[in-house]
Amino acid sequence: MNAHDSIRAVSWHQGALRLLDQRCLPGHVEHLHLTQSTAVAEAITAMAVRGAPAIGIAAAYATVLAAGTRYAAQPDTWASAIEADLRELAQARPTAVNLAWALGRMRTVIDSTPGDPRAALLQAALALHGEDIAGNRRMGALGAALIEPGRAVRTYCNTGSLATGGYGTALGVIRSAYTGGRITQVYAAETRPWLQGARLTAWELAQDGIPVQLLADGAVAHLLRQGEVAWLIVGADRIAANGDVANKIGTYAAALAARHHGVRTMVVAPTATIDPATPNGAAIPIELRPPEEVLSLAGQRIAPPGACAWNPAFDITPAELIDALVTERGVIVNPNAERLIRHLSS
Amino acid sequence: MNAHDSIRAVSWHQGALRLLDQRCLPGHVEHLHLTQSTAVAEAITAMAVRGAPAIGIAAAYATVLAAGTRYAAQPDTWASAIEADLRELAQARPTAVNLAWALGRMRTVIDSTPGDPRAALLQAALALHGEDIAGNRRMGALGAALIEPGRAVRTYCNTGSLATGGYGTALGVIRSAYTGGRITQVYAAETRPWLQGARLTAWELAQDGIPVQLLADGAVAHLLRQGEVAWLIVGADRIAANGDVANKIGTYAAALAARHHGVRTMVVAPTATIDPATPNGAAIPIELRPPEEVLSLAGQRIAPPGACAWNPAFDITPAELIDALVTERGVIVNPNAERLIRHLSS
Repeated sequence: MNAHDSIRAVSWHQGALRLLDQRCLPGHVEHLHLTQSTAVAEAITAMAVRGAPAIGIAAAYATVLAAGTRYAAQPDTWASAIEADLRELAQARPTAVNLAWALGRMRTVIDSTPGDPRAALLQAALALHGEDIAGNRRMGALGAALIEPGRAVRTYCNTGSLATGGYGTALGVIRSAYTGGRITQVYAAETRPWLQGARLTAWELAQDGIPVQLLADGAVAHLLRQGEVAWLIVGADRIAANGDVANKIGTYAAALAARHHGVRTMVVAPTATIDPATPNGAAIPIELRPPEEVLSLAGQRIAPPGACAWNPAFDITPAELIDALVTERGVIVNPNAERLIRHLSS
Repeated sequence: MNAHDSIRAVSWHQGALRLLDQRCLPGHVEHLHLTQSTAVAEAITAMAVRGAPAIGIAAAYATVLAAGTRYAAQPDTWASAIEADLRELAQARPTAVNLAWALGRMRTVIDSTPGDPRAALLQAALALHGEDIAGNRRMGALGAALIEPGRAVRTYCNTGSLATGGYGTALGVIRSAYTGGRITQVYAAETRPWLQGARLTAWELAQDGIPVQLLADGAVAHLLRQGEVAWLIVGADRIAANGDVANKIGTYAAALAARHHGVRTMVVAPTATIDPATPNGAAIPIELRPPEEVLSLAGQRIAPPGACAWNPAFDITPAELIDALVTERGVIVNPNAERLIRHLSS
């Protein structure tokens, strides 16, 4: 078994949601055992669990917890009472659409389950989780096939087992490509302010024995100028109908540098990340996170007293900068509105 | 007296070189008192003093210390013995040309001083220091005049009193522009890995009461898309004969994003930073700093055990991305080889 098979950011364990607390990595491996939907919403907001697919899966399991509580208290009216829980979960973080998508999947089960909903909802959450892992494996193979052997790639943030049901989106492609002998070296940007690259991606890749070099986020253009890197490979938190991509703050600057240097940009995300109701990137809500994340580093204050910070968690990479979008259904080269519609109806 | 008048990164104090130890800021204000040239070289390498003009000035004062030691030991042959000290100082950091330039200035005094060199060398170092401050004031006024009132600017790294003899290059322009009512807001990127923006620039600006928002380095393209920022204003560590600029790693990615969004880029540096002997950016040596700067913060490890890092300290911004180069002699719009030659002979 590879290390990535044993890393589970989210799992159902003895009637509770078990989260690997990502705030403690890589120093400590600690788990949260949550039995209340509200606690899951709080864990999502506080980023104990993060990554668009992983928070969708966590919200699906939270729905199981909510249904248990609501059904026990009000067996006749639980299905309307649970709406407050679903709203709370949906609002836990605003940018990733996978959260709303997962809750929508769970709501269809709620709407079609007259009696005790718990077994049906748990089955639905487990299915959603399993589909995510299977989708990651398919994306891994599809994306790896795009990479000509013998080059390096650069990734950003964390899109691995920790950000998904397991295996990963962009990091799944990197895993598949490395296993297939296609890439020689991974460059991972540290991803300030939350350091997902330094803390999580380096940790996952080290466990799989994949060679990784960390670098400062600002070093991206200098790195791509060297000519060693063939692809920038990233995930997504929401993809608008026209193909614009919301992803971790810093993705857009990297994609601009990539286009300037003839390095291609691959976005790897399940179709659940595509939001046909959002026409373009300008319509995607960008979460502003607390200034403290910038003013401190790994819990240690770095800025002087009284300093202010602007801390948007995501930015928008326009569709025209994306060379390939990989989903579990296939590859879209140069994504645009028309190709996305065709892809979603395929 | 403004706060920036009281901040002195480098000063001559009671026969010793006094350095404000920038590794301890903003938490602690501590000074080093150095009496040996070798200790100054070590302080430059370890970045107790940093910033291209400041390390040039520190090296000039170190020459005074070296001459004192060498002359006391070998009054007849000190001028050849001191060459080892000058070499050691020149090699303390490779990228900033101000170091070699300052040592060149001091060598002309060494070559023309037959007897006890100490008084003449101290006078030369003090003059070089004073010229740097006066040059910063002139650049401040020249650069500020380029900024149309009512907009924000974004700076990077630290180019203030701490990086120079006093006042600052890019931060001097920002000080002058703010005093003159031309800018409403400063955005300062934190500048990983050494955090000069978060630790030093935010500290200097707060002391002068200039409004500053910190942001992650990766947020630059997202910031510039908002339309609030009119200028990217940065310093330089070396400017090649064709106008290519070596500056803190991350400058190049920011300049690409600026050009994409119609934001102009201003480089502010004394003519001592221009190196006619280096034909272009590709010929500028880029210092690789220890991986630990990326892997840790203040002794606290942020990356998992065994992780590697690539840590170039500078990158090259090509001349064609620079809208204005401001030196103490004037403004060069769209710098190129021909305009630089004309400027240097003016």
